[in-house]
Amino acid sequence: MFGELFGRGGAGPSDQDWLQAMLDTEAALARAVERAGLAPAGAGAAVTAAARAENFDVAHIGRAAVLIGNPVSALVRALSAAVPPAAREAVHRGATSQDIIDTAVMLLARRGADVIDADLVAAADQAARLAREHTSTVMAGRTLLQQAVPVTFGLVAAGWLTAIDEARHELRVVRTTRLAVQFGGAAGTLASLGDAGPALAALLAEELGLSDPVLPWHTDRLRIVQLAAALAGVCAALGMVARNATLLAQTEVAEVAEGGDAPGQGGSSAMPHKRNPVVSVLILGCTRRAPGLLATLAAAAEQEHQRAAGAWHAEWETLSELLRLTGSAASWSASLLSGLRVDPARMRANLDATGGLPLAEHVSTVLAPALGRLAAHELVAAASDRAASQGVSLPEALLGHEPTAATLRAAGIGAAELAAAADPAGYLGAAAEFVRRALAAHGGTNGETQASVG
Amino acid sequence: MFGELFGRGGAGPSDQDWLQAMLDTEAALARAVERAGLAPAGAGAAVTAAARAENFDVAHIGRAAVLIGNPVSALVRALSAAVPPAAREAVHRGATSQDIIDTAVMLLARRGADVIDADLVAAADQAARLAREHTSTVMAGRTLLQQAVPVTFGLVAAGWLTAIDEARHELRVVRTTRLAVQFGGAAGTLASLGDAGPALAALLAEELGLSDPVLPWHTDRLRIVQLAAALAGVCAALGMVARNATLLAQTEVAEVAEGGDAPGQGGSSAMPHKRNPVVSVLILGCTRRAPGLLATLAAAAEQEHQRAAGAWHAEWETLSELLRLTGSAASWSASLLSGLRVDPARMRANLDATGGLPLAEHVSTVLAPALGRLAAHELVAAASDRAASQGVSLPEALLGHEPTAATLRAAGIGAAELAAAADPAGYLGAAAEFVRRALAAHGGTNGETQASVG
Amino acid sequence: MFGELFGRGGAGPSDQDWLQAMLDTEAALARAVERAGLAPAGAGAAVTAAARAENFDVAHIGRAAVLIGNPVSALVRALSAAVPPAAREAVHRGATSQDIIDTAVMLLARRGADVIDADLVAAADQAARLAREHTSTVMAGRTLLQQAVPVTFGLVAAGWLTAIDEARHELRVVRTTRLAVQFGGAAGTLASLGDAGPALAALLAEELGLSDPVLPWHTDRLRIVQLAAALAGVCAALGMVARNATLLAQTEVAEVAEGGDAPGQGGSSAMPHKRNPVVSVLILGCTRRAPGLLATLAAAAEQEHQRAAGAWHAEWETLSELLRLTGSAASWSASLLSGLRVDPARMRANLDATGGLPLAEHVSTVLAPALGRLAAHELVAAASDRAASQGVSLPEALLGHEPTAATLRAAGIGAAELAAAADPAGYLGAAAEFVRRALAAHGGTNGETQASVG
Amino acid sequence: MFGELFGRGGAGPSDQDWLQAMLDTEAALARAVERAGLAPAGAGAAVTAAARAENFDVAHIGRAAVLIGNPVSALVRALSAAVPPAAREAVHRGATSQDIIDTAVMLLARRGADVIDADLVAAADQAARLAREHTSTVMAGRTLLQQAVPVTFGLVAAGWLTAIDEARHELRVVRTTRLAVQFGGAAGTLASLGDAGPALAALLAEELGLSDPVLPWHTDRLRIVQLAAALAGVCAALGMVARNATLLAQTEVAEVAEGGDAPGQGGSSAMPHKRNPVVSVLILGCTRRAPGLLATLAAAAEQEHQRAAGAWHAEWETLSELLRLTGSAASWSASLLSGLRVDPARMRANLDATGGLPLAEHVSTVLAPALGRLAAHELVAAASDRAASQGVSLPEALLGHEPTAATLRAAGIGAAELAAAADPAGYLGAAAEFVRRALAAHGGTNGETQASVG
Repeated sequence: MFGELFGRGGAGPSDQDWLQAMLDTEAALARAVERAGLAPAGAGAAVTAAARAENFDVAHIGRAAVLIGNPVSALVRALSAAVPPAAREAVHRGATSQDIIDTAVMLLARRGADVIDADLVAAADQAARLAREHTSTVMAGRTLLQQAVPVTFGLVAAGWLTAIDEARHELRVVRTTRLAVQFGGAAGTLASLGDAGPALAALLAEELGLSDPVLPWHTDRLRIVQLAAALAGVCAALGMVARNATLLAQTEVAEVAEGGDAPGQGGSSAMPHKRNPVVSVLILGCTRRAPGLLATLAAAAEQEHQRAAGAWHAEWETLSELLRLTGSAASWSASLLSGLRVDPARMRANLDATGGLPLAEHVSTVLAPALGRLAAHELVAAASDRAASQGVSLPEALLGHEPTAATLRAAGIGAAELAAAADPAGYLGAAAEFVRRALAAHGGTNGETQASVG
Repeated sequence: MFGELFGRGGAGPSDQDWLQAMLDTEAALARAVERAGLAPAGAGAAVTAAARAENFDVAHIGRAAVLIGNPVSALVRALSAAVPPAAREAVHRGATSQDIIDTAVMLLARRGADVIDADLVAAADQAARLAREHTSTVMAGRTLLQQAVPVTFGLVAAGWLTAIDEARHELRVVRTTRLAVQFGGAAGTLASLGDAGPALAALLAEELGLSDPVLPWHTDRLRIVQLAAALAGVCAALGMVARNATLLAQTEVAEVAEGGDAPGQGGSSAMPHKRNPVVSVLILGCTRRAPGLLATLAAAAEQEHQRAAGAWHAEWETLSELLRLTGSAASWSASLLSGLRVDPARMRANLDATGGLPLAEHVSTVLAPALGRLAAHELVAAASDRAASQGVSLPEALLGHEPTAATLRAAGIGAAELAAAADPAGYLGAAAEFVRRALAAHGGTNGETQASVG
Repeated sequence: MFGELFGRGGAGPSDQDWLQAMLDTEAALARAVERAGLAPAGAGAAVTAAARAENFDVAHIGRAAVLIGNPVSALVRALSAAVPPAAREAVHRGATSQDIIDTAVMLLARRGADVIDADLVAAADQAARLAREHTSTVMAGRTLLQQAVPVTFGLVAAGWLTAIDEARHELRVVRTTRLAVQFGGAAGTLASLGDAGPALAALLAEELGLSDPVLPWHTDRLRIVQLAAALAGVCAALGMVARNATLLAQTEVAEVAEGGDAPGQGGSSAMPHKRNPVVSVLILGCTRRAPGLLATLAAAAEQEHQRAAGAWHAEWETLSELLRLTGSAASWSASLLSGLRVDPARMRANLDATGGLPLAEHVSTVLAPALGRLAAHELVAAASDRAASQGVSLPEALLGHEPTAATLRAAGIGAAELAAAADPAGYLGAAAEFVRRALAAHGGTNGETQASVG
Repeated sequence: MFGELFGRGGAGPSDQDWLQAMLDTEAALARAVERAGLAPAGAGAAVTAAARAENFDVAHIGRAAVLIGNPVSALVRALSAAVPPAAREAVHRGATSQDIIDTAVMLLARRGADVIDADLVAAADQAARLAREHTSTVMAGRTLLQQAVPVTFGLVAAGWLTAIDEARHELRVVRTTRLAVQFGGAAGTLASLGDAGPALAALLAEELGLSDPVLPWHTDRLRIVQLAAALAGVCAALGMVARNATLLAQTEVAEVAEGGDAPGQGGSSAMPHKRNPVVSVLILGCTRRAPGLLATLAAAAEQEHQRAAGAWHAEWETLSELLRLTGSAASWSASLLSGLRVDPARMRANLDATGGLPLAEHVSTVLAPALGRLAAHELVAAASDRAASQGVSLPEALLGHEPTAATLRAAGIGAAELAAAADPAGYLGAAAEFVRRALAAHGGTNGETQASVG
């Protein structure tokens, strides 16, 4: 019912994906076992050939999972039955069910992270385009939801870009450095393999392209916490972007509008004037669920002895869901940013509507050399009060007040000087420079984070 | 893959259940519209006849949900097409999509709460049976996971009973008093119905057996938070029970064992001696996910204006899942408690293994009248130290130390008096009385809570 | 540093409050012990006289807490030393440290709930005033942050009122029915009291005005979860109000402004035009922390055997903080609502700025009898498109398009009829009725919840 | 009251620390302003000299914080008043209050991370010592809280070591790469500095030894989320260790005991036999609060425009607390591990109590070459059942059953071979190798993580 909304992009594993990931782990183990000389030649290939999800009955395996509390035992039985007898001793050799599930989780996480990464790249590229195109598009900065001094939409988009890039970088770090095979056997000693365990673990890692950890990590769940934190970090970045898109798209602000991902998206039959920011809303519908799932996984990290009684089991669906929701948010974000319609005229109009008051600080600075800092400040503050109460612009409030006008005339400051001081385009500070830096970081090393780490 | 583990009992709605609940809402609305005289006779019945989930294409509706961000618009279109033209004006009359989804959520919550309640009754009845059967079964009390003074297993089970009963009571309070129709139209005014809105809302509530709230609650989400909190409260109770079952089932404690819900459950082919507490583990695998989901729903309650942009959308799957997991925990708990094997001899043996030390407080009390309170305390403390270091029982340590033995003889206290003082069965205080109270509360009013409220 | 921001109102206990609550528990126990005939006359009074926080060294007791993991043992020692020898046997009689801490928590919760309740009453009364005063103040309804059909500010305030009232009701239910003494002794059997335990527990409950529970609830933490959920429910309501206040106060919306709680509050020296919604921001700074704290307490409810090893300890500061933050949010909310400045003219102007488009649904309804439902809808939809693209009002778009104008003339519909149909004040449905209901619920029974329960 | 329990080690900032960190930021900014040529020589030194927390009235600044919703404005006023007029233009130059608070947070985080790191090093070194000392100490492995195949306590300690090392590594990565100055001025453009902003930001970063970020990160909160996640990761590791210590210390297991951090710690006057695992309990009392705080910070990352209205404010105390609790857990963990008393004899006794059943897998493997794999498995399974039901050892059950004994005799397998197969010390697989790897990782690069990143 809600799969198109919260499961877009496919980063979240289906039952079929789970099954295949477990089978891929078993197949890689069988190949490793053969390479280690613990099974006859061909055993690895035979198991690999059999280990295709479509050959197995997911429903049956799911039902049988109640016997030991996870589906691996039933899966191993079915897999063993599906391979030639000679290959059977390679199946599940030395492994415990947690080895299979945890390694499968790593494979699902890698796949999910790659899917998410691609969507984040697309989203970041679009944010970069917006930052470039709107480097000079002046708009109101807003703090505590009130207009403050001006910014540019390019800078806003650069902020989105940097947030996405840095969250993506973090996910890639986890994907590259923290996804490791789990292979410890019944209690983390690989005892049934005698001395052959560590070498087999290394081969398994090689087969799967995962790290070979210092130790089996049966009850050391930092990898899971880090993965979850990186996904929640992505959600944090995307939620911030979507939140701001909804705010900028408000009827009364109307500085951006969603392009819509599909024809008619965001429309309303009853209210033809409405263009709902449906995509942003769906992103938020995904990202707001990440913190609670992250907390569940962090709390589940307190695991007992050599295998946890419940905490481990709480991870499986939770992590699946976090992958799914993060992926959906990323996929929708690429749509949002590629379709976003920006209205520079409205941005300017909204800023002008406050009559230069956001520039009061600047006007005061400009007057200071002639009038003294304190006097300038007081003059401008009084004029700002008049401007706000009378609904005129700040320059008008200054020049329309005869004593002030006289002071300004004496100081050689006229309408032109005031207009310049109250021009938002003249008070943008480092906005353009910051945009350049964000684009450079995006184009090059993806930001200071990577630079610092490297 | 994991549905049998974490979705047992059926309290969590499937896609089909969601669809039917929305259709039930639309059908009830059509009947209410007819009763209000706003549609021709027969319209309600016609819509009701058409509103069967099996007649609709869930996948199509799910895909179309991306247009407005929820599935209602597509559903209404399909439902309208499925009814005679004359009945069409009764379809979705005056409603907005949130009205349909929120009311459907209430229906799903009611259904889920009823399923959960039945499993909780079964679990509580079993806990009551255990409490009754083991009123006199002495075992070690344990604080901070260390043996303390004795308790009875009957009291432990009474604690489980009371916890389940009170959590169940709370869920029933929410189910009875807080499930209300949502019916506010586009922005909570029911404007398209002119003056007829409130009366129609009352009819809709009547049709569905839900409360008619003071106001539409589009962005007042206390009902959702309370429902989630009641579910999390059930999980808290069940998680406590399951946690204690796993601890009592530890190899070194072995005071209880799971009966197994299915033949072979909990076994291990590789380790035939093992009887894993699989059911308890699965309960914990469910209950540990409740706090994070509760946090998500509590955080989502900060909703904007007349309809939230994202926070509302974050509720749907989260609440579904909380219903599903709570229901699964309840269903497994009924199995756990009905099959639990209790070993009174092992309970007694574990307590005896500490040689009466948990009774030191009692021994001291018994000696006090003869020796004085302070002297008795010091004598017993010293003997406890000797008992612990020498591995003898507390009476042995008292009588085996000649100066102490002499003091005791002089006071007329011999081995029999000491043995009586060190007998756990003689130091159970109000345990039996507390069991009686818990059983009475279960049998009668379901506890002080209801009594206080009523 | 942040106490004035996040600890306003005093609902959160200080160290001194904690100490006094534990002393109050010990004093009540001593009086109960005397009443039960277990200590000489005067013992209760003597202990009560000594049990004043200012007589004790909090820092010392805090340091000594590391010995047993909580401060009670050091407190009991100090209290015993402060009373006459004859009264000493009444001190801490039969109790364990958890009895003292848990009962103290109940006292702190009651005190905190009362403080919060008073602030919620003040806030609700102000919301009621706003609802009454603005029953006819038309403003834009907004869904997904887009203008939808009109509402009244009275209805918005009525929604705030109902949300606060219902959350307050829930807190009062917990305060009235779920705060119970904890008195179980070392392992929940009150063994050291022989048969006298339950009667003493009842006397203790009477002394403190708390409930006497069915059983000691050492590891049954539903009371804590319910208390936390009720506090989080209050935060949910207040966060919703504050969120909407910040949105309505946006520069571009400007429909409300904060009055400021103190002179100069919300001002900005650098930007004299700014009036920051500081109070709303601080409310949100409090309420957004509630869900995480609630999750901590819900997760901590999985407690072991007769006393938990860690989960119990995680509750103390967490609950203190939740009381503090909820109280601060409530106190700030009373300020916010009493000082809120409402600008009906701006509300009307914002609505008019969309040129009647939010009324398209209504216009269509009005034209339907003459033109037929479908034709009316199509005519209005086309006109809405023109209105939006040309920046004219909906009536102008209808009358300015000759074919449409001809059709309307033929149907006898002119500018006056269209203006009436596009008048927001004519399309408010049940808004006024809903305001009346909310006010009635506030004035009378505090809403349907109580009515349903009673 | 609870500061010694949950605030040990000093990683959590006090009010005084907060004040000093803000002053340090202001002082560094003044020096940077002077270096940039924007203030007269000596201004930096003058501000630095004045910027000492003890010169300021924290309570006053706290009260004044209600005016703008944070304490910076009052602090700047007081600081300006405390410096010579000539230095005043260097004070707070170009900054907004968020610049000061966020940069102060980075300083507090760095200080806290360093304190925590030192305690983690101490804890890890002790875990390494335990791993080394107990490389050959055999004990039961336990999965789902049931005895499984044997492990060594050295391997258990190596698991603790690796968990602590990897969590510590992650915290150091964040500390080294992600702590950056915040310097953006009113809306992130540094407009009041003209073109001088970015250079001044770089100087400020240099003065403070923090990174200079690509952009101001006013509403891009990934740094905060990553910091929180790293702290929660540390709590996850320490909570796992403490959880296992409490389980191993259970009366019925008794394989470890706490040494106690202070004389008498863990004792119980009423129950002299008890040695409560107080330190582990306090660690868990800290670590269990981390996930909820992490969720709060992750949820708070959705921030609006150029400065968030509430979400930012929710961070301050939450992060302080997470630093405090993590630090306390780390400090207690160093105590726990340095004082831990290990009882190898009891470990062996607990394992022997199951009569070789955990070795059934091994016995079966040993018999397989002679009997065939399937026959061996069935023989051992049947004997295991007999052993469990009759309370004899597995070798006894095999040899005491005449048909089985005959089969074994025929295969040349006698009591000695069976005893060897059932000897846990002979079935430890890679345990010793894994200990070596963990020690090497600790001694060298601190584990595979760093190696992978480097």
